[in-house]
Amino acid sequence: MSDDPLSNDLLSDVRHDPRVSDWWRTSIIEMSPGVIRYRGHAIQDLIGQVSFAQMIWLMTRGELPGAEQAKLLDCALMAAVDHGPQAPSIAIARMAATCGVGLNNAMASAMNVLGDVHGGAGEQCVEMLQAIATRIDAGAALADAVGAGLDEAIAQRGKFVSGFGHRFHPVDPRAPRLLDLVDEAAGLGVVSGRFAGIGRAVEAELQRRKDGRRIPMNIDGATAVIYAELGFPAPLARGLFCLSRSVGILAHAWEQTQQGGRNKGPMPREYLWTYDGPPPVRPR
Amino acid sequence: MSDDPLSNDLLSDVRHDPRVSDWWRTSIIEMSPGVIRYRGHAIQDLIGQVSFAQMIWLMTRGELPGAEQAKLLDCALMAAVDHGPQAPSIAIARMAATCGVGLNNAMASAMNVLGDVHGGAGEQCVEMLQAIATRIDAGAALADAVGAGLDEAIAQRGKFVSGFGHRFHPVDPRAPRLLDLVDEAAGLGVVSGRFAGIGRAVEAELQRRKDGRRIPMNIDGATAVIYAELGFPAPLARGLFCLSRSVGILAHAWEQTQQGGRNKGPMPREYLWTYDGPPPVRPR
Amino acid sequence: MSDDPLSNDLLSDVRHDPRVSDWWRTSIIEMSPGVIRYRGHAIQDLIGQVSFAQMIWLMTRGELPGAEQAKLLDCALMAAVDHGPQAPSIAIARMAATCGVGLNNAMASAMNVLGDVHGGAGEQCVEMLQAIATRIDAGAALADAVGAGLDEAIAQRGKFVSGFGHRFHPVDPRAPRLLDLVDEAAGLGVVSGRFAGIGRAVEAELQRRKDGRRIPMNIDGATAVIYAELGFPAPLARGLFCLSRSVGILAHAWEQTQQGGRNKGPMPREYLWTYDGPPPVRPR
Amino acid sequence: MSDDPLSNDLLSDVRHDPRVSDWWRTSIIEMSPGVIRYRGHAIQDLIGQVSFAQMIWLMTRGELPGAEQAKLLDCALMAAVDHGPQAPSIAIARMAATCGVGLNNAMASAMNVLGDVHGGAGEQCVEMLQAIATRIDAGAALADAVGAGLDEAIAQRGKFVSGFGHRFHPVDPRAPRLLDLVDEAAGLGVVSGRFAGIGRAVEAELQRRKDGRRIPMNIDGATAVIYAELGFPAPLARGLFCLSRSVGILAHAWEQTQQGGRNKGPMPREYLWTYDGPPPVRPR
Repeated sequence: MSDDPLSNDLLSDVRHDPRVSDWWRTSIIEMSPGVIRYRGHAIQDLIGQVSFAQMIWLMTRGELPGAEQAKLLDCALMAAVDHGPQAPSIAIARMAATCGVGLNNAMASAMNVLGDVHGGAGEQCVEMLQAIATRIDAGAALADAVGAGLDEAIAQRGKFVSGFGHRFHPVDPRAPRLLDLVDEAAGLGVVSGRFAGIGRAVEAELQRRKDGRRIPMNIDGATAVIYAELGFPAPLARGLFCLSRSVGILAHAWEQTQQGGRNKGPMPREYLWTYDGPPPVRPR
Repeated sequence: MSDDPLSNDLLSDVRHDPRVSDWWRTSIIEMSPGVIRYRGHAIQDLIGQVSFAQMIWLMTRGELPGAEQAKLLDCALMAAVDHGPQAPSIAIARMAATCGVGLNNAMASAMNVLGDVHGGAGEQCVEMLQAIATRIDAGAALADAVGAGLDEAIAQRGKFVSGFGHRFHPVDPRAPRLLDLVDEAAGLGVVSGRFAGIGRAVEAELQRRKDGRRIPMNIDGATAVIYAELGFPAPLARGLFCLSRSVGILAHAWEQTQQGGRNKGPMPREYLWTYDGPPPVRPR
Repeated sequence: MSDDPLSNDLLSDVRHDPRVSDWWRTSIIEMSPGVIRYRGHAIQDLIGQVSFAQMIWLMTRGELPGAEQAKLLDCALMAAVDHGPQAPSIAIARMAATCGVGLNNAMASAMNVLGDVHGGAGEQCVEMLQAIATRIDAGAALADAVGAGLDEAIAQRGKFVSGFGHRFHPVDPRAPRLLDLVDEAAGLGVVSGRFAGIGRAVEAELQRRKDGRRIPMNIDGATAVIYAELGFPAPLARGLFCLSRSVGILAHAWEQTQQGGRNKGPMPREYLWTYDGPPPVRPR
Repeated sequence: MSDDPLSNDLLSDVRHDPRVSDWWRTSIIEMSPGVIRYRGHAIQDLIGQVSFAQMIWLMTRGELPGAEQAKLLDCALMAAVDHGPQAPSIAIARMAATCGVGLNNAMASAMNVLGDVHGGAGEQCVEMLQAIATRIDAGAALADAVGAGLDEAIAQRGKFVSGFGHRFHPVDPRAPRLLDLVDEAAGLGVVSGRFAGIGRAVEAELQRRKDGRRIPMNIDGATAVIYAELGFPAPLARGLFCLSRSVGILAHAWEQTQQGGRNKGPMPREYLWTYDGPPPVRPR
């Protein structure tokens, strides 16, 4: 049984120390024998009624979203699953799969590197979009808020603005489709469309600053727009990206397992690295 | 930009060594500037058309499932997201979140422990169900195949049969609902219903062997039935469980982050462990 | 063979792409068939001549330290190996060891949480000590440099000054002994003693600010003094702490393996956590 | 403060639940305010008296070794620190270091892959050497015990015998030097020399079976001889290898940090992988 660390037999004559129970308090899940409730909802009432995306929302936010909101979340999750084995996370998953560890271990080593640089762009972009919205709420005009928000982001993290531009794709094919879906949802009143507008204004301002050269929104920008539209706090954007990318990580670890190989290195076996250190030292 | 390790500018005048490219060959994803295809499907054709569950299937299996099959996969994924902070994976996620690491790192430390004991029951149960099916295909009667399959599983892994029985829940409330959905899908021809039948026959045989005491199917057994019905190879059952449980892992890491705390230990701060080692040694 | 991803047979008729080799360039290790050199030193010249601590220094810094310097490094490493299972890293190692993963995986999940809060105090303290030294080099008096350095550290990271004070130990028994050894080494000219002096001046200033209440140097402060005396850059202080603490992590993972147990949770099995979320929701 | 999860202030008026304390019982470390004892030895008695290698032994085995025994352990640890960036663990450390995570995280992702294939050879070799010794203890002649032990190892794990042969090095330069040191220690009565003898007999038998072609002992075999001579149980051989290799992991993660780079992939940026999946699918 993979997930039950509790023993029925022992639940009887016990006087608990409430400080110990309180040390692990949570509002996510309530359990008693035969009963599992997430945020108050009995699991048997959720199964078959609520999608995986709705469950992700319920677990992280505390309430059930409507089906249409969940669909938008679902789209953001499905769109970011993989960018191929040149990404360090995916390469790590494939290497790990040849080292004699479990799929869970290969996935963990890979997910672990979705840090500020490799997995943080969505979070950083949500932060910027929300900061711009806050300026507007405080009375700034859109253009001013966008300019100031961009300046702030660049001051904090350098000239590459998280969520915009791509070294490989002139236009990231995922972004326009996702934005279309946001527009559609905004048309139906599912979301406000506000952050899509801010995102596009950022894109326009970046183009203006680059003398007309477009730095189009990329996957991180488009998913950030969706997460902001849906009201997710910025740090969860990284968490959601981890959930999404773990699909690609699993797929590649599994494919590598089937391809076989032992101790897969980064280069074909006949390659050696370039050594650029000191020349041989004669023993003393 | 979180996922683009490739540089457009450099793609021009290069003579590549094909062995290097081949070293990282994959049939999962194809890319060129502006183009991303998963298993042949352009990403812009998938976004908005295909659910997260369908994407998980496409990535791991190579083909798109029908919507009804994907719904069943979705149910298995959403049903297993969490079993509370007494599970080591969840406790680890919460502790990690207080140690000054990122959400991705907290999730990785947690997912890493979904090993043979904590995350392997689904995989082991799929193996058993498939082994029983293979015996039936080879001509054995259902009862004989089930008995032999159970014997084999017990010989391999001991008397606790993966997928059946629960130390905490007399009846795991997730299992019957999931089986209902399998029956429904079988009624509609979405799946064959064969593995639900085998699973129930295993349950009956276990009850017979225990002189009538029921050892009901648990979440791992019910999801194993679904994965087997849908044709997933057994090792992917563990991978899918990792995807599912990572939702609970994220939710708890995030809740702990909001609760605050630094270096959260397993017991309240005023507790010490019991020392049962040698008495103080006098310095020599 | 655990560490050879290269194939002798294939090294013959190959025209390599030097960019691929350069992509993995390093000055740490040079290899050819039958030859392994670290920073220019052939391994067979090092084995039996050079201690583990010297090797750690050679690998991270590029040159061999003298035996006396290495002894001081050895002391810092051996003194910080463990602080018991209330530390999240150690608890994680023990839990992981019951989940059906390898010792390496248990160690990795644990080491992973030695982040800014759980493993960063040494690094932060080295930074402060070095910043104070820099102020002195620029002409400031010791007292002024210490005051300004403390103010800066507190402004950056809050009132708990990394390396000083302990919530459990009135006096951390590891710190005075380590400082004695630094003094001894300074007496012999092995180190300058400068950072021991700065560390003690910080301690005195903290006491002054607390109206005479002592906030004595702890293990992180004492090892930071040693690492600073030996010239390690601050980030390596965290790396060295990881090497040190991984010994305790291994010892506890191994002890737990021998104790047995499956899916060890943070509390005894008969405990449940406190649920403080919404009440049961009636299905719609 | 990196390692004190306990609060002095709270230790006063508390009635503890002993089951909670017992749940985390250990014989490794005992603590009370101002006191830390490892296996009964007060830390202040150990610091300056006992080397890092002796501490590793004390923590994992429960007793202090003699200085000469510890020296041999030290040699095994220092000899296996690194085999260059073609090893998946090292490549992972370097990639991770460019992804915006901490050194501890980069080290964890790397150590995590030292599994059965990448980090298990030493453990497997110790098992074989001990199994051969057990046969001899039971009355078998050396040659018979070696033959049977080899047969058993090959039956379990295939024709590549852990600890012998190297795909890259005709002779692994680390092994003969380590064996010399074992011989020396045996001459001084520090160890028995028994496992060095068994190891060489295995080497001879392998050569006989290969019609005279030598399959010399490699680093894993030589360290396995040392660990067996010193009485370590086989699983600790993997743990010790993790401690050793984590030095190389740290050195490479640190060098990569200094080289810079973002999201370092396995190939230079201008490379793409080979796609060998289905051709583009036309949208339905």
